[in-house]
Amino acid sequence: MKTDCSRRLNQLGTETAFAVSQDASDYALSGKTIYPFHLGDINIKTPENIIEATKRAMCDGKTGYVPSDGIPQLRDALADSVGDERGINFTRQNVVIQPGGKPVIAKFIHALMNPGDGVLYPNPGYPIYESQIEFNGGDALPYSFIPTSDGFMIDRDRVETLINNNTRLFIYNNYQNPMGCESDNGEMEWLADLALKYDLWVLSDEAYHRIKYSGRSYSIASFPGMYERTIILYTFSKTYAMTGWRLGAAIGPESIIKIFSKLSVNDESCTNHFIQYGGVEALTGNQDGVTHILNKLQKRRDILAKNLKEIKGIQLYIPNSTFYLFPDVTSIYNSMNAQSYEDFRLRVLRETGVSFCTREHFGTPFKDEKRKYIRFAYSGISINNIQNGLKKLKNFCAELETSTIF
Amino acid sequence: MKTDCSRRLNQLGTETAFAVSQDASDYALSGKTIYPFHLGDINIKTPENIIEATKRAMCDGKTGYVPSDGIPQLRDALADSVGDERGINFTRQNVVIQPGGKPVIAKFIHALMNPGDGVLYPNPGYPIYESQIEFNGGDALPYSFIPTSDGFMIDRDRVETLINNNTRLFIYNNYQNPMGCESDNGEMEWLADLALKYDLWVLSDEAYHRIKYSGRSYSIASFPGMYERTIILYTFSKTYAMTGWRLGAAIGPESIIKIFSKLSVNDESCTNHFIQYGGVEALTGNQDGVTHILNKLQKRRDILAKNLKEIKGIQLYIPNSTFYLFPDVTSIYNSMNAQSYEDFRLRVLRETGVSFCTREHFGTPFKDEKRKYIRFAYSGISINNIQNGLKKLKNFCAELETSTIF
Repeated sequence: MKTDCSRRLNQLGTETAFAVSQDASDYALSGKTIYPFHLGDINIKTPENIIEATKRAMCDGKTGYVPSDGIPQLRDALADSVGDERGINFTRQNVVIQPGGKPVIAKFIHALMNPGDGVLYPNPGYPIYESQIEFNGGDALPYSFIPTSDGFMIDRDRVETLINNNTRLFIYNNYQNPMGCESDNGEMEWLADLALKYDLWVLSDEAYHRIKYSGRSYSIASFPGMYERTIILYTFSKTYAMTGWRLGAAIGPESIIKIFSKLSVNDESCTNHFIQYGGVEALTGNQDGVTHILNKLQKRRDILAKNLKEIKGIQLYIPNSTFYLFPDVTSIYNSMNAQSYEDFRLRVLRETGVSFCTREHFGTPFKDEKRKYIRFAYSGISINNIQNGLKKLKNFCAELETSTIF
Repeated sequence: MKTDCSRRLNQLGTETAFAVSQDASDYALSGKTIYPFHLGDINIKTPENIIEATKRAMCDGKTGYVPSDGIPQLRDALADSVGDERGINFTRQNVVIQPGGKPVIAKFIHALMNPGDGVLYPNPGYPIYESQIEFNGGDALPYSFIPTSDGFMIDRDRVETLINNNTRLFIYNNYQNPMGCESDNGEMEWLADLALKYDLWVLSDEAYHRIKYSGRSYSIASFPGMYERTIILYTFSKTYAMTGWRLGAAIGPESIIKIFSKLSVNDESCTNHFIQYGGVEALTGNQDGVTHILNKLQKRRDILAKNLKEIKGIQLYIPNSTFYLFPDVTSIYNSMNAQSYEDFRLRVLRETGVSFCTREHFGTPFKDEKRKYIRFAYSGISINNIQNGLKKLKNFCAELETSTIF
């Protein structure tokens, strides 16, 4: 029938984690307490100075259209701030404002990928990468990670086997969702060499660049030869607790930014006018709000990590960035005789109220993948709930231990 | 080279009217007065009650993510308001909130068009229709209009010749940009019959539905059999002077709205949270602001029309909707011996400071198209400037008349 939907919808994925929220809501409706470790949102207020600046702009009549690439003040502020942090000399021409970080993913693919081109992307990783690659007719090439003593590293050998003549794009998410891991200098040098060797464009998803609890952050765009082939996905969402504001940017070579701007004319005209002034305040105003957010998150991380480590059967490394922990729960999974990740998640939810996403919400596990992982987000849960939820989980695991042999 | 951009960028169009703004700015820099009839933006303030409601929501912490289809209150308010006006029974499930009206165009095409499918769209018309059709690999089929005594009508015979087995979509913009024309009941019945006969999906771009100075507005979605095959593009931009807010919606059959929502998860996560409360106030609160905006626009229209009619060589009908006039300037064009629309526009701009878009900014003129048209927008210009600009234009035309033979 002619009124069928388009065929490409069969290739469209989604964030399956939304189903986890639904399960948690259903469970809460039955009167039980939920410990929401599944939420990627932040339950901390946007800093007051950002709200004030936005109010001012709205009342000053900053309510009409702006150029599709954004107000010059915000583009300048981003060029300065992002450039300074990364040791790169950006100008306004390198910046196009976007309604959030996410629109940068589709635009990267629209601007640089032809149907059939290979695109490398992290698995586990943010599920929208794969969805946009496939929806636009690309060849989705998931790359994997190897656990190390202090996190995870990209499986470089596997990456090399995936590359062929049609491979053109590499999606890279340092300070990674869901694993929280970060590249050491060696891994970033390897990636830069790889991109140059195979002539790849890189999307550097830097959503968590400033959610870093110690040490400085690095960007692949700073490595030799990478400025010309890297698009930075920037978002205000995490650093400033502005998830629902939908304010972000793409930052990269001027020629590509011009294309992104033309895509913006086609896709959304421009980003909300007055909140761009909030963005200027976020970058150039008082930074106490950022410190407050980071301190709060770090406290939660420490308490969550301490409690998780006390549970027998959980293996955990503590990442220095993002607001996720990604424990290895293989031993518990096996002792529960779980039939699948979903079986595992739902049984724990029903028995304890502890709600989380599993590794499977971030891509299809590889055939040779043996270990089982889940993701705890601590951005949307109070310290009290962290402690109470973990107590329940600990008891649940202890009972398992008495009833089975690990 | 592998780092070339994607091939489909060759099919990406834009709003060429931005170049008109640039010319006007350049002209203003030389110290001369510009009369900005090219602006599609509105220089009227957003009603105060909408601003207040938005401020309240922002301060109340409505700053986190919301579901990709929007907050339930706004979806309900839109279902009621849009349904009541059109005599259709919509519910929340028929509504997905969008960051503006424009994102509905791409989503309509992504959801319903396969590469090679034919898509009918108005020419003259909003240039993004053609751009999105071609960027996504569709067969762009422009349909034309015939001047009548009181506006323009769709050239039905030509539409029939364009349709073949691959034609699946029809883009319809009643209360039309740039012509300001509207369908009579017969034209809408014809379109409904056509859509049923050829099994077409219809995008009904209703951006100007409430910019109507007398009589009520009609939607193609209200016609028999059309509810199931029509997606309404709704936007707050024009009615409430909220162009820079980026708040709109797609409204249509539940099964398609679900797909739009999934596309939103992929493209932008959600629309800004707190401004959705501003949208609720816009729809359900005091409507004095809407009346004020309409009164202001109508006054400008009347003065602009009166002044245009006094110019010899201009033929004009006065539309009852939108904020555009679309005079036939063929006689002046010929007496100027203009070499092209751009030549005409730039010479008038240089001689008078009167800045406008031409017919060419809304699609490539048809080969058999003889008459010349320009578009005057009166949404972004004061009454004073309308009067002064038209005086200059009148003098310019009078001089032409003395120096040439019409």
